[in-house]
Amino acid sequence: MLGLLRYSSAFADAAPEILPLATARGRVLAEDLLSPVNLPPFDNSQMDGYAVHGDDLDGSAPLYLAVAPPVPAGAEPVALEPGHAAPIMTGAMIPEGAAAVVPIENAVPSQFPTTGQYCGEEGLTVELPVAQAGSFIRRAGSDLEAGSVALVAGTLLGPSQLGLLAACGLATVPVRPRFRVLLLSTGDEVQEPGTELAPGRIFDANTTLLTTALEEAGAHVQRHSVVADNPEELRGALQNIGGQVNLILSTGGISQGAYEVVKQALADSSVEFLSVAMQPGGPQAIGTINGVPFLGFPGNPVSALVSFEMFLRPALGTVTGLPGNRVCLPARLTEDVQSPEGKHQVRRGLYTDRSGQGEGIGDVTLLGGPGSHLLHALAASNALVHLPAGTGTVEAGTPVAVWLLGELRQGAQPLHPGNPTREALT
Amino acid sequence: MLGLLRYSSAFADAAPEILPLATARGRVLAEDLLSPVNLPPFDNSQMDGYAVHGDDLDGSAPLYLAVAPPVPAGAEPVALEPGHAAPIMTGAMIPEGAAAVVPIENAVPSQFPTTGQYCGEEGLTVELPVAQAGSFIRRAGSDLEAGSVALVAGTLLGPSQLGLLAACGLATVPVRPRFRVLLLSTGDEVQEPGTELAPGRIFDANTTLLTTALEEAGAHVQRHSVVADNPEELRGALQNIGGQVNLILSTGGISQGAYEVVKQALADSSVEFLSVAMQPGGPQAIGTINGVPFLGFPGNPVSALVSFEMFLRPALGTVTGLPGNRVCLPARLTEDVQSPEGKHQVRRGLYTDRSGQGEGIGDVTLLGGPGSHLLHALAASNALVHLPAGTGTVEAGTPVAVWLLGELRQGAQPLHPGNPTREALT
Repeated sequence: MLGLLRYSSAFADAAPEILPLATARGRVLAEDLLSPVNLPPFDNSQMDGYAVHGDDLDGSAPLYLAVAPPVPAGAEPVALEPGHAAPIMTGAMIPEGAAAVVPIENAVPSQFPTTGQYCGEEGLTVELPVAQAGSFIRRAGSDLEAGSVALVAGTLLGPSQLGLLAACGLATVPVRPRFRVLLLSTGDEVQEPGTELAPGRIFDANTTLLTTALEEAGAHVQRHSVVADNPEELRGALQNIGGQVNLILSTGGISQGAYEVVKQALADSSVEFLSVAMQPGGPQAIGTINGVPFLGFPGNPVSALVSFEMFLRPALGTVTGLPGNRVCLPARLTEDVQSPEGKHQVRRGLYTDRSGQGEGIGDVTLLGGPGSHLLHALAASNALVHLPAGTGTVEAGTPVAVWLLGELRQGAQPLHPGNPTREALT
Repeated sequence: MLGLLRYSSAFADAAPEILPLATARGRVLAEDLLSPVNLPPFDNSQMDGYAVHGDDLDGSAPLYLAVAPPVPAGAEPVALEPGHAAPIMTGAMIPEGAAAVVPIENAVPSQFPTTGQYCGEEGLTVELPVAQAGSFIRRAGSDLEAGSVALVAGTLLGPSQLGLLAACGLATVPVRPRFRVLLLSTGDEVQEPGTELAPGRIFDANTTLLTTALEEAGAHVQRHSVVADNPEELRGALQNIGGQVNLILSTGGISQGAYEVVKQALADSSVEFLSVAMQPGGPQAIGTINGVPFLGFPGNPVSALVSFEMFLRPALGTVTGLPGNRVCLPARLTEDVQSPEGKHQVRRGLYTDRSGQGEGIGDVTLLGGPGSHLLHALAASNALVHLPAGTGTVEAGTPVAVWLLGELRQGAQPLHPGNPTREALT
């Protein structure tokens, strides 16, 4: 599977997309990015306080210094003279000559003079304790030096990563293109939602199910309308795909029936039709069509989703750099289960975290039976439950491996460290 | 905080949005949805096989039945006569009179006749084992009955949930509107990325950082350009917001300096400026502006993100129904750490899962110091590390609570149940 997707040279060789930071959330960085600036860009104050000259740092008694003009953040300050202390704000540039900052709360008075008194005419004086050289100064480049790597290629771009690029002054970011999938649902019985259901027919769940799953995994999906059980129509739909997509994915029509449209349409192509020892999701098709990787999943919705989770999602993650592996946890079955020994059975269930009750392992309750049409039960599930080949009867209480579908929601938050309390107003 | 956001009546009372299924991924269902159809919509075959009449089920010897015209999926079949067996495909409607399906692999011959032989003229016969009434038939409504609740209000819409709605024939879904936030970054020193950095100034990281974090949490963000340290300008920006947003969020300008623009602009409003015993993120502002909830976060990017994670994200999750709480795990510190005893310190670090090594608890290595400007260190972190108030020195090896930022990536996948093997082709 991985080899097949890597074969998709159109993806591996595609040029990066250049995106504004605001639209790059959840994308993957295409190349190493160097910072054009130091972070911080200049020596600056960590606190609201007074900048003190280097000549005034040695001594043991309190300092009595003349109050110099203040240094707001965003300004380029004048040099500080010995014997003077400049009110300086958090983030403001350290004036030339200054060697330390004393926080305002350690000064006497511990409030800045009002603006009107700052002109120097009044000869204001402030009393400060002795300060260590460099104290409360953030040095230029101490977080990140100009010219060094801010983020490496392959980084998943979330709030902190994009925030960092903004801090570096970058307005755009090169990201890997999305992996593009052409999705086709097949079958005479399959009908678009939003229409009147004809006798013997069912609504197409697979297009919505797999589009959503693929998009959640970071892919771009080109949806095709439902293809009837007509090999000519399917071959027509696959004409002229060329390099426009990285994968063609179909559902249905690959099993042992008399009308298997995908099997019939692709009988003479480089596609293999096989059976894996998995339930649901046994029938599978894999190969290439005109050089484009192709996968054929079975048509029942649960089979299609299990096939996606077991085979395609992990491979997509490896190829694209986006998260592909589900979180895997042990959980105790809440009932006895019977699994076909020759197959890897994947059941659906509700995982319950028990760490709130001081237990190290959660429970999982199976929802619905093994049937691959039980979409309502799947929609109520938050986990896939694995009963590997060689497993027959499993008794209640036995730990099994579960994959979490989506975010782990912790009920009791037992490890929540508690909220900070309000401090006395300072 | 939660009370404040709930106060935002504009959010609680807003009408649902009606979205096509294809665009509803990650949204929250606004109301209970009933299924207009049975799932499955009709009794249908679970296998490719032969439909057998109810009159032919009692008996112990193999059955020899005349082959009736086949039943493809998607068609409305004619009634089945006693003494006949109809080839039936997976998902096809059970003909009137039929009471069981025998899988094709249990028939003799175990392949369907080719289409040309199906006309009945040839008088084909098939040998079948005795079948149990109802076997391999999926009953109409067995997954979900028409008129019953498909999904309850508040359900997070992912692949399976949207797939289920498609299977029910629904083309659109009513979802809760996005929580709308007006975001303002303040400060004379703050400059838009993509420009030439002037002396004493820094690029605006907070707008990108918080926009991305808010969008990741499901909110819609209205970004405002950077507001200078001018109370009049800020008050102007806040005019006429009215019911257009559910929250106004600012960064910077709320601390103890001489130029605190948010504090100055909102001095006469219903906003409280306070200090919480947290590091970073001590200065906070909370209140309402013209009836719209308001939060003021401190201006350092790490302080802003920690404020978001500690206060706003969990409250947003509760109000919107989207995941708000981070996964919280214990992890062992890899080095000694000193924390201010009077404050809840939130450090940033790299969490490493150790379950692959058979250990039940992971490690966390702190990245960067406690400084709230260390955005590069934050961008390399995957966890917030909690050192609650009352914690002084913590020795290496001590378990502390960490919150995972984003998905838990398991390295070794120790619980991966292995891939299913290929079966013999059937």
